[in-house]
Amino acid sequence: MDGIHLLGEWYGCAAEMPEMTNAEALRTLCLRAAAASGMTIVGDRFHQFAPTGVTGTVLLAESHLAIHTWPEHGFVTIDVYVCNYTTDNSPKAEHLFRSMQHALRPERAEFQAIHRGGRDA
Amino acid sequence: MDGIHLLGEWYGCAAEMPEMTNAEALRTLCLRAAAASGMTIVGDRFHQFAPTGVTGTVLLAESHLAIHTWPEHGFVTIDVYVCNYTTDNSPKAEHLFRSMQHALRPERAEFQAIHRGGRDA
Repeated sequence: MDGIHLLGEWYGCAAEMPEMTNAEALRTLCLRAAAASGMTIVGDRFHQFAPTGVTGTVLLAESHLAIHTWPEHGFVTIDVYVCNYTTDNSPKAEHLFRSMQHALRPERAEFQAIHRGGRDA
Repeated sequence: MDGIHLLGEWYGCAAEMPEMTNAEALRTLCLRAAAASGMTIVGDRFHQFAPTGVTGTVLLAESHLAIHTWPEHGFVTIDVYVCNYTTDNSPKAEHLFRSMQHALRPERAEFQAIHRGGRDA
């Protein structure tokens, strides 16, 4: 059951963006980006931290998106993981990852792509 | 904002275990294991696939747990990610990861630990 997991650490995101500070705004962005990437959304959960910051996940038929924001540091971490069960979902994962990065506009980004699992399960 | 992300791919998990097939059983396991590891749970969402399989996440003040099961293949992927914002949460992450592995008893396990972010954000 091979899959691909994209991990990002984004620095210098604009702290005042609603998508950085407000759970509902970030949720809306994530759901729209996942749908626009051709993903099948099966659930989501977002949490608003006080005084600021959001953590959230979107459950996908393809696997998941997870995101955490620290507006006070302009910092975001994001995970997009897809399993290639019946088809290669890597292009969808890359599209979703790029669209989130385009929306949150980090000044500096660290990126890792990790292959997970083999084809023997 | 440094953190540690533990990734597992587990093969040969017993397909008939309720925690492999049933969303509520897996949710109960994850919530108990997270609490027992000293994590602060701020939300969760689990989804039952038909005919079988579960995907779910637990949102943590420390970051998140994500898990996917494919009972028909005895296969599980798991992520435990913690950010070390005010304290080093790595021991909690390792405890949670190990307790989940102990519960699901894979015959074979692949493991990666990835350091994320720097100390400059």
